[in-house]
Amino acid sequence: MLVNGKPQRTIWLHSDGETIELIDQRRLPHEFIIEHVTNVEEAAHAIKDMTVRGAPLIGATAAYGMALAMRTDASDTNIEKAYDLLYATRPTAVNLRWALDNSRELLSSKAESQRKEAAYSFAAQLCEDDVKINSSIGDNGLELFRKRWEEVKALGGQRLNVLTHCNAGWLGCVDWGTALSPIYKAHDEGIPVHVWVDETRPRNQGASLTSWELTKHGVPMTLLVDNAGGHLMQHGLVDLCIVGTDRTTSTGDVCNKIGTYLKALAAHDNGVPFYVALPSSTIDWTIRDGVKEISIEERDDREVTHMRGRTDDGKIEEIAITLEGVRGGNYGFDVTPAKYVTAFITERGVCDASEEGLAKLFPEECAVS
Amino acid sequence: MLVNGKPQRTIWLHSDGETIELIDQRRLPHEFIIEHVTNVEEAAHAIKDMTVRGAPLIGATAAYGMALAMRTDASDTNIEKAYDLLYATRPTAVNLRWALDNSRELLSSKAESQRKEAAYSFAAQLCEDDVKINSSIGDNGLELFRKRWEEVKALGGQRLNVLTHCNAGWLGCVDWGTALSPIYKAHDEGIPVHVWVDETRPRNQGASLTSWELTKHGVPMTLLVDNAGGHLMQHGLVDLCIVGTDRTTSTGDVCNKIGTYLKALAAHDNGVPFYVALPSSTIDWTIRDGVKEISIEERDDREVTHMRGRTDDGKIEEIAITLEGVRGGNYGFDVTPAKYVTAFITERGVCDASEEGLAKLFPEECAVS
Repeated sequence: MLVNGKPQRTIWLHSDGETIELIDQRRLPHEFIIEHVTNVEEAAHAIKDMTVRGAPLIGATAAYGMALAMRTDASDTNIEKAYDLLYATRPTAVNLRWALDNSRELLSSKAESQRKEAAYSFAAQLCEDDVKINSSIGDNGLELFRKRWEEVKALGGQRLNVLTHCNAGWLGCVDWGTALSPIYKAHDEGIPVHVWVDETRPRNQGASLTSWELTKHGVPMTLLVDNAGGHLMQHGLVDLCIVGTDRTTSTGDVCNKIGTYLKALAAHDNGVPFYVALPSSTIDWTIRDGVKEISIEERDDREVTHMRGRTDDGKIEEIAITLEGVRGGNYGFDVTPAKYVTAFITERGVCDASEEGLAKLFPEECAVS
Repeated sequence: MLVNGKPQRTIWLHSDGETIELIDQRRLPHEFIIEHVTNVEEAAHAIKDMTVRGAPLIGATAAYGMALAMRTDASDTNIEKAYDLLYATRPTAVNLRWALDNSRELLSSKAESQRKEAAYSFAAQLCEDDVKINSSIGDNGLELFRKRWEEVKALGGQRLNVLTHCNAGWLGCVDWGTALSPIYKAHDEGIPVHVWVDETRPRNQGASLTSWELTKHGVPMTLLVDNAGGHLMQHGLVDLCIVGTDRTTSTGDVCNKIGTYLKALAAHDNGVPFYVALPSSTIDWTIRDGVKEISIEERDDREVTHMRGRTDDGKIEEIAITLEGVRGGNYGFDVTPAKYVTAFITERGVCDASEEGLAKLFPEECAVS
């Protein structure tokens, strides 16, 4: 997407053709800094310290990490060493594991002399695949946006009001994003989209990332506290909701950033369509009941009791917002039952948020499970 | 309630019997500062700059402001002057208007020589009435808490988990509070209450005020982001919700701090009782449809785009949490339709959140309307 008028991805090959550049996402929204990654240690560090975040982008960074390792030493020993180093950065990340397993398998099957080239093309292909999947989600979602905009326009609406939660944008991927992909496509074709962005406490991905990327691309937006969406929906100020997903059950339950469920309830109560943008890689075909079967990560108190931001004189500060010693409960995700989801928007098309809906689009998976 | 082991109110007569002391609530939770108010100008200033907040406390401060004015000059002119000065501080506050109108009417009916004493007793009575009403709400709510605790205990529960939103505690009143009053009474009689406190963005009343007052009184609590309550309710971790109200329709709709509606939806979806503590002064008998008829105040952007807190070295700082120039939508309240409210807890007893329920407890009002 655009940043300061120029097309931008989150990760790309340096002009030397071998080292990597990526956006330091810890510095957003206050600073836009490009990090130069020249070896596998730096790639591992970028994942571990969250210079990069978002499942697809972590996978892409790991794949390039393997390539950087092969560049200096393409031995069997170094394949294993690089694998272990990168895997240890965020061992619960599914895409990280997937990228590393596939890269290792490919490299092990090649002669040492061919490994460097193979690793770079694997990483490049992984990035292109991610862009393609998300662009397809965008195209499929765009159809729904066009239809909704026609309805809104017919009722005298001046803009298409879309509410989103957390960051399911290009910053978590290589480009386009998932939930934000149809928004960019709709905006680019001239639909007057306006986005209500939930700030998404406690990590504020909406305030810091979604606001940044929409504004930089030129999409009109307004930041909201997480409390506000229900009121807006009661008053007809939201035409549709769209969010991403971290994990989706075979029956259509959606595990996404904490607070997603509350917005889905409000959308349901007010007849507002609630869409989930869903790269099929997030579907866990082995799980049926999201609320019962998905265990929710509990994170550090300090994310709840403290906030980071920029002071008026430009310094980044962390402040306490409560009495010293107060405990903060910090649950990372919640589960939105399938019945509150209007439809899934996948790279293969749009379907019902149900076992039957998913089976129609992904028959090969359902035969297996 | 208790602060550092000692009983504390929000406003009280100084030991000189004429000047006033109150808690500077702008400094909470980081500092506990008592402000000394010696004349009507200082009283007006305390209301205007939000040293005091909460409808009942604003009323009480205004009543004492009139008394401070009568102390130096009990003339008709000065009654009007003090009235105008105090009224201009927050002209939309209903309790402020009520306290001032009644004080003025009373003082005008007295001889000049009796006005000072009359003004002080009016203010003192107003404070005592507030304490009494909130204590009754506490007693009536306590019955429900006892019953719920028996149910929870029978199912093996170790504590009674109560979720609250915003601050409906003693800090907004003279003592006890509304929604927190039954919590204090239950805690004081030995029910093992634990409170989930919504931080309540954008002004963070939960993080700064509710957390402070519960902790100071010794009630166990955990601070939550506003996104988390739905997840907790899905997992049986909330036994009941209780909130306050700013304005209640004759049919039982509840206008309260933004985000209340989302919690009510989640409570409804998970079969969790959702109570509203309701001093009858908040009922607007002229309004029937809360969503349609109550217009919601929009506030300054900066409350959404910025946060205030204490840095590690003890300085109070304000930080930006989003990209410069991003607009924040800031709606102060939302309306929870009556159908999502399990019951009202009033100073007269508990009733259904409906026209019939309110009519049973307040027949005199319904006969009039």
